[in-house]
Amino acid sequence: QSSVTLYGRVDLSVGSLKELGKGSETKMFQGGDGGLTTSRWGLRGSEDLGGGLKAIYKLENRFNATDGSSQDPFFKGESTVGLSGGFGTVRLGRSTTVYDDIRAVSYSANVFDSAFTPASNGVFKSGGDYNSRFNNMISYETPSFGGFYAGLNHALDNDSTKNETMTALKAGYKNGPLHAALGYQNERKTDDKYVALSGAYDLGAASISAGYNQRNGTDANGDDTEFTVGVNVPLGAVNLSAGYANSKTEKGGATSSKSSGFGLGATYSLSKRTRLYGGYRTHEVKNGAGTKTADTRLFALGIRHDF
Amino acid sequence: QSSVTLYGRVDLSVGSLKELGKGSETKMFQGGDGGLTTSRWGLRGSEDLGGGLKAIYKLENRFNATDGSSQDPFFKGESTVGLSGGFGTVRLGRSTTVYDDIRAVSYSANVFDSAFTPASNGVFKSGGDYNSRFNNMISYETPSFGGFYAGLNHALDNDSTKNETMTALKAGYKNGPLHAALGYQNERKTDDKYVALSGAYDLGAASISAGYNQRNGTDANGDDTEFTVGVNVPLGAVNLSAGYANSKTEKGGATSSKSSGFGLGATYSLSKRTRLYGGYRTHEVKNGAGTKTADTRLFALGIRHDF
Amino acid sequence: QSSVTLYGRVDLSVGSLKELGKGSETKMFQGGDGGLTTSRWGLRGSEDLGGGLKAIYKLENRFNATDGSSQDPFFKGESTVGLSGGFGTVRLGRSTTVYDDIRAVSYSANVFDSAFTPASNGVFKSGGDYNSRFNNMISYETPSFGGFYAGLNHALDNDSTKNETMTALKAGYKNGPLHAALGYQNERKTDDKYVALSGAYDLGAASISAGYNQRNGTDANGDDTEFTVGVNVPLGAVNLSAGYANSKTEKGGATSSKSSGFGLGATYSLSKRTRLYGGYRTHEVKNGAGTKTADTRLFALGIRHDF
Repeated sequence: QSSVTLYGRVDLSVGSLKELGKGSETKMFQGGDGGLTTSRWGLRGSEDLGGGLKAIYKLENRFNATDGSSQDPFFKGESTVGLSGGFGTVRLGRSTTVYDDIRAVSYSANVFDSAFTPASNGVFKSGGDYNSRFNNMISYETPSFGGFYAGLNHALDNDSTKNETMTALKAGYKNGPLHAALGYQNERKTDDKYVALSGAYDLGAASISAGYNQRNGTDANGDDTEFTVGVNVPLGAVNLSAGYANSKTEKGGATSSKSSGFGLGATYSLSKRTRLYGGYRTHEVKNGAGTKTADTRLFALGIRHDF
Repeated sequence: QSSVTLYGRVDLSVGSLKELGKGSETKMFQGGDGGLTTSRWGLRGSEDLGGGLKAIYKLENRFNATDGSSQDPFFKGESTVGLSGGFGTVRLGRSTTVYDDIRAVSYSANVFDSAFTPASNGVFKSGGDYNSRFNNMISYETPSFGGFYAGLNHALDNDSTKNETMTALKAGYKNGPLHAALGYQNERKTDDKYVALSGAYDLGAASISAGYNQRNGTDANGDDTEFTVGVNVPLGAVNLSAGYANSKTEKGGATSSKSSGFGLGATYSLSKRTRLYGGYRTHEVKNGAGTKTADTRLFALGIRHDF
Repeated sequence: QSSVTLYGRVDLSVGSLKELGKGSETKMFQGGDGGLTTSRWGLRGSEDLGGGLKAIYKLENRFNATDGSSQDPFFKGESTVGLSGGFGTVRLGRSTTVYDDIRAVSYSANVFDSAFTPASNGVFKSGGDYNSRFNNMISYETPSFGGFYAGLNHALDNDSTKNETMTALKAGYKNGPLHAALGYQNERKTDDKYVALSGAYDLGAASISAGYNQRNGTDANGDDTEFTVGVNVPLGAVNLSAGYANSKTEKGGATSSKSSGFGLGATYSLSKRTRLYGGYRTHEVKNGAGTKTADTRLFALGIRHDF
């Protein structure tokens, strides 16, 4: 018999976006640009092979629910097959990197890791940012050893005339309310190296998350130093969250740009699978001379449904 | 657990198409161009949220079954999420407009609202026609109040440099054998305004449908006056249907084009989900000087299967 | 109720490819280019219409699991609807041709009819090869009459300015361990005509398959004479297989190119739906003067999972 799970999520919101040098626009957001998350659907499953071994796969399309268009490539979200067992998990294909997992830890209590999270929307991208997904990856994740875990990606080239390989590593400790982890990603195409230190703690009445990242680039690209912190407060069906982030880029010893931003959000769960939400995010970027090069304000109200 | 329904339809036919200035072509039709309907597959579902409230979503791909190509955008048919309850239904995203619903009423007994229906294939398009779907829509439909209903769409711009908003309205009465309804659509991009008055009646031995439409355009676009009527006769597993339509476009007080056509069709149901069909459609368009600018004859035999 | 089966296959491998004039590349293969098969997912189903009659459909997407991209057109694998009964099977739409079925018989014990099968990867393509799928096809297959069967495809033109029709035929005998069949395909666009004679026999301890093909082209395209043979040895969960193929192209009575190659492969079944595999393929092509124009070595290890 077949063992496929068909799943998905549709997220749409209406709100306003104000950018530097432009008037305020009232518009509909497809989720990833002004909501909780990008809309998606996918196929996933696992097969029990005996002796604790499992075959696993996942294929995930991302799309813009505003106009029905598919994002590119078709299975942008993930396209993997692998084996899972006592030894951990080995997968082949396209997916997010283990470094992205560590970034996600630092946003776990930061305005729902959404379009309202300032770190991942504008602030950290002001100096250029890592690629969250790679094609042609061999990936390995250990099982948890009393809370300790580690993982590795290596993206192969598939074009002998270029060097577009990527290597990423993660190592962390997750036990009870505490999650602390370190990530590294080396992108050979740009020669940018990323390091992230992330932490999250669940205090019960609230949870907090924080992250500190560095990008070590070439002399031309410069280096980034980045920080973010967030707090999430659950109040029954309501969740309130806030986040702050700042970033600095240095080239040749001088600051070439500075960015900071904050976000606020609230969700109301109509069920486990359906929530209404509102969010606000602002961030600004200044160049080395102190001139604003970006000043963005986003506000939106929306709905997310999981199936 | 998941609550997704995977559904679809494959419609293919073989026939001939004769157009003005071209020989007759024998070809395969993908459904929408020479069959009952365009082939599609999709995901849809609803979640009971308690108190009569439901979360609903629908994602529908349209494709050409002749060659397997997807139509563009990927979820061309629909891409929506919303809430439904005692207050009616609110949805966000891409879908057909409520004006299109009223047009559909006027075709409901007119050669199966198919590629053989002359009104929606050639006759009404001779002067330019409305867009049946819009992106970025906020949509609301009332519940039925003793047969009376209404609905509204507003399409947001999503590009501040243009005004591409659209507003559509519908209001109708549907009770027992009678359905009468009025629709309005204002497309800001072209400044064309459409009004439709539709009616349908089920006599038992036959059902009839009719529609009267007006397009009020700019001086350059001109105005359209359109009429269609159809009849459907069910005979056990067989359905026979015929339709007629005419259209006139006026610019600056003078008639710039005239169009008329008729269609005939028969379906034979092998089951509720599978039917064989045959259809014939002809339409011609003449310009203000009385010269034919289109003269089309379509004949096809096909099969439609729903899943 | 719905009667749709959602199915698929993910196949990924890692290995090396060495081509004439290039260094050896280590890369990930999407399945079709260095594994057992191209990754895919699809929708298929049948509806019982009573009296032995069934409605059938199949829609199959092919994709590159290495990067998640869809192959083009979207339902490249198949897009058909039809009826099946005591009279045989009639289908409309896009699919593989019946000639391709006969080619497949000749590869049935030849390195798993995979990217490691030399005949279908490089050797037979050295002189140009047939198109395995066509759009706009009317297809018919007889039932089996005591083992004897036949089939027919006719691809319609869908563009009156060109002649791109195709006609294909097959006839065979399959009973117990023996399968012998003949195929023919006439592609009007290139004026190439293909004939294939295929056989397969299951000896129990091993199965063998062989094929002899001819392409009769225009004077400019030339003619091909092709041969392949393969053997498959099942050893419990392991399957070992080897294949050999050669091809010769003649233009104006002179040999314009010669090609040969062999392949080796092994699969290990973790379950009916999941297998690990390794394979090796080499082929070379020489032109009329005896100069090598291609010299390819492929080696890969991978995993295939069906769902």
